[in-house]
Amino acid sequence: MTKACFCGTFDPLTKGHIDIIERAAGIFEEVIVFVSVNSEKKEQFPKEQRMYWIKQATSHLKNVRCAIQTGLVVEACRKEGARVLVRGLRNSIDFQYEQNMEAMNHQMAPEIETVFLMSDPAHLYCSSSNVRELLRYGQDVSHMVPECVWQDLEKVKR
Amino acid sequence: MTKACFCGTFDPLTKGHIDIIERAAGIFEEVIVFVSVNSEKKEQFPKEQRMYWIKQATSHLKNVRCAIQTGLVVEACRKEGARVLVRGLRNSIDFQYEQNMEAMNHQMAPEIETVFLMSDPAHLYCSSSNVRELLRYGQDVSHMVPECVWQDLEKVKR
Amino acid sequence: MTKACFCGTFDPLTKGHIDIIERAAGIFEEVIVFVSVNSEKKEQFPKEQRMYWIKQATSHLKNVRCAIQTGLVVEACRKEGARVLVRGLRNSIDFQYEQNMEAMNHQMAPEIETVFLMSDPAHLYCSSSNVRELLRYGQDVSHMVPECVWQDLEKVKR
Amino acid sequence: MTKACFCGTFDPLTKGHIDIIERAAGIFEEVIVFVSVNSEKKEQFPKEQRMYWIKQATSHLKNVRCAIQTGLVVEACRKEGARVLVRGLRNSIDFQYEQNMEAMNHQMAPEIETVFLMSDPAHLYCSSSNVRELLRYGQDVSHMVPECVWQDLEKVKR
Amino acid sequence: MTKACFCGTFDPLTKGHIDIIERAAGIFEEVIVFVSVNSEKKEQFPKEQRMYWIKQATSHLKNVRCAIQTGLVVEACRKEGARVLVRGLRNSIDFQYEQNMEAMNHQMAPEIETVFLMSDPAHLYCSSSNVRELLRYGQDVSHMVPECVWQDLEKVKR
Amino acid sequence: MTKACFCGTFDPLTKGHIDIIERAAGIFEEVIVFVSVNSEKKEQFPKEQRMYWIKQATSHLKNVRCAIQTGLVVEACRKEGARVLVRGLRNSIDFQYEQNMEAMNHQMAPEIETVFLMSDPAHLYCSSSNVRELLRYGQDVSHMVPECVWQDLEKVKR
Repeated sequence: MTKACFCGTFDPLTKGHIDIIERAAGIFEEVIVFVSVNSEKKEQFPKEQRMYWIKQATSHLKNVRCAIQTGLVVEACRKEGARVLVRGLRNSIDFQYEQNMEAMNHQMAPEIETVFLMSDPAHLYCSSSNVRELLRYGQDVSHMVPECVWQDLEKVKR
Repeated sequence: MTKACFCGTFDPLTKGHIDIIERAAGIFEEVIVFVSVNSEKKEQFPKEQRMYWIKQATSHLKNVRCAIQTGLVVEACRKEGARVLVRGLRNSIDFQYEQNMEAMNHQMAPEIETVFLMSDPAHLYCSSSNVRELLRYGQDVSHMVPECVWQDLEKVKR
Repeated sequence: MTKACFCGTFDPLTKGHIDIIERAAGIFEEVIVFVSVNSEKKEQFPKEQRMYWIKQATSHLKNVRCAIQTGLVVEACRKEGARVLVRGLRNSIDFQYEQNMEAMNHQMAPEIETVFLMSDPAHLYCSSSNVRELLRYGQDVSHMVPECVWQDLEKVKR
Repeated sequence: MTKACFCGTFDPLTKGHIDIIERAAGIFEEVIVFVSVNSEKKEQFPKEQRMYWIKQATSHLKNVRCAIQTGLVVEACRKEGARVLVRGLRNSIDFQYEQNMEAMNHQMAPEIETVFLMSDPAHLYCSSSNVRELLRYGQDVSHMVPECVWQDLEKVKR
Repeated sequence: MTKACFCGTFDPLTKGHIDIIERAAGIFEEVIVFVSVNSEKKEQFPKEQRMYWIKQATSHLKNVRCAIQTGLVVEACRKEGARVLVRGLRNSIDFQYEQNMEAMNHQMAPEIETVFLMSDPAHLYCSSSNVRELLRYGQDVSHMVPECVWQDLEKVKR
Repeated sequence: MTKACFCGTFDPLTKGHIDIIERAAGIFEEVIVFVSVNSEKKEQFPKEQRMYWIKQATSHLKNVRCAIQTGLVVEACRKEGARVLVRGLRNSIDFQYEQNMEAMNHQMAPEIETVFLMSDPAHLYCSSSNVRELLRYGQDVSHMVPECVWQDLEKVKR
């Protein structure tokens, strides 16, 4: 039985993230979605809300659960006994960043494999930073984030 | 239980291939290594020898087996009931080629996921075409191919 | 009034081509679609059929017409009095190829500007070579080519 | 009649910018050069000076005018009734950044087309940030910026 | 006789740096390793320690010496009468950054040639920033830095 | 004293080649220009003519000479006692190709260093294949090839 982790800040969760989570859940027996909490990086949405969104948006996936992650990603995987770290790839700049991260993680934890899934072309530009940029200008992001995220964002607007 | 396929011409098998096969075998319950037989492409080594090399070099991996593949890769996966197609990624040119292939395969067989593993830096230049190029000039390839391949190549030389 | 040209082998015409043609037709007063006839390159579909498909698929665009192009692209533009050459860009490998072509064309005809449109993510993998590859294996290409192309391809199958 | 916009911080204006503006002015009926004023980004030269430089350096182009742009680029285009947004492309890192921006802008304003021109090899390294870096070390930038910019920069030195 | 310079922050020195220095020392008559001191960039290790590490780790190379560099790299080369600036290349993002730097330096000092060496695959992920990241989490970096650096880092831990 | 080699098919010699040769001659004590003769590759100009052009175009460089190269590049370097192989780099596709070649050559001859020079932006599109393409269409290539090459090409035309 192979457990897999998927880590990110999910600030906020996007349809691109959900696509990767769903595909990982179809391949691995259990998927743990880790919400990274990084004291150095300014996050726009509180970690409780980010956790809540993931729980809502993955409630149809019985083998997915969600947890907070602090410290090293590979340490979090180890504690959970997860052998696999899942990452999405969008373009060749992503690729070079991920190649470096994979090498670093492999060095610290050679027993954990990083596996990559290509982003669906439909979600290629559906990054959290793009969503935040659009929100800053009051633009519609309904096609980029799951329903539950969008509804909460709308409530804030009103 | 997740079955995975790994396809290639393996002309010849390299240490880079073995690394990907071993890592896939550690993640998935069963791994089928498909030797692609492509009538349009000129191959240097007969398919029987390529099959034999894979069997020899993976004999320590109990969940790996080997088969001939003709026609579409996704059809071969389907016949085996494999949900996953494993691919190695070396550099950003590889990446763009694989992004196109993944999209094509996804279109024909959306139920099959392509998952990518980054090549180990130690095997970055360990491609079959590099091995063939070195052989053409009578160079040593012992560090690039598994022991069994190397011994057979040496026999031919003598 | 700015005339623009869009050149290609269109072997066969794809939805990606139509997207670029429609967008070019919205920017420029007249768009001439040139079907390149290259004696060195083996083409799958006869030039008459490729012309016919473009005419059918662009019949709703009043400022678009179609012509055969032999020889240099810039010579064809010059004869038509077109100041602009339109090209689509999909990924960074495309980009480097196009950067070289633009430089070559600029040298031969500095009065002609090459302008680039980014391919719609929905058509990112919708290349003629992918269509031909899918056809070879009897796969469905209805989502990749315009209706008129698809119907003609179906007739051949039957 | 097609109106086009060209946006940037122009901090300061370079020969690369002028090359793109001149080429755009040869293709489109009217070109509006927008000086982006971004409260979050620290700019080296005041917006009035950046505007002045553009006016001076484009005074020979009758169909070019200059305006201040705050907020979203696509909103500025809309207010002007411009259908086209012009961008320059230098290398494949530029390309990936621009691919993302184009997708974002297309989403917010599908009626506006982004068209790309390849930078002239002569101006490949002629970016505003390179100019600022050279100025910091008191280096000559006369070959990188238009005459009027260079003269003003020299006055400051004395 | 050709003198070469190799500049960096060496914060800290890695096995990747040593590899480039050794190879440069095999090609050029004299190699000066410049420790860049950049007031704007926060450095983790004091410049004296970075100098000391280089001296220790290159003590077996008779034609290598070490100096502090402030201001422009090309000015430092000029003062030393060095005709060559050596740089390492790891990946295509490095490449594009270096292409811009080379163009800038060439402009300011056309008599100085920048020559590039490809990083050894074994040191591909052996960057100073990766070392600092691993140190932050108390990870082992013994395979990434020279012996003398590692011993000093261990002393701090205790 | 460091001897360097520069290899190519030079089919035909371009201004880009001359630029690299001149810069290498300024760094290394002796530069040997090897004209690769590859029985598998169809060459447009006979090897004698290619040799003659190099001799003519480098006659002002006292430390440059020219030789025919068959077989492996590293073997040719070894026979000459050259420690350095010089290569030009134009773009990131070049880069990935060269990274693989460097690794292959390093494996076969670890004592030979490959050093890379960035192509001058003025010669970025000045490749032999571009020259051949332009010649095919009777275009002017006087700005892309040395004077002596151009004169011979003109004689043929007449």
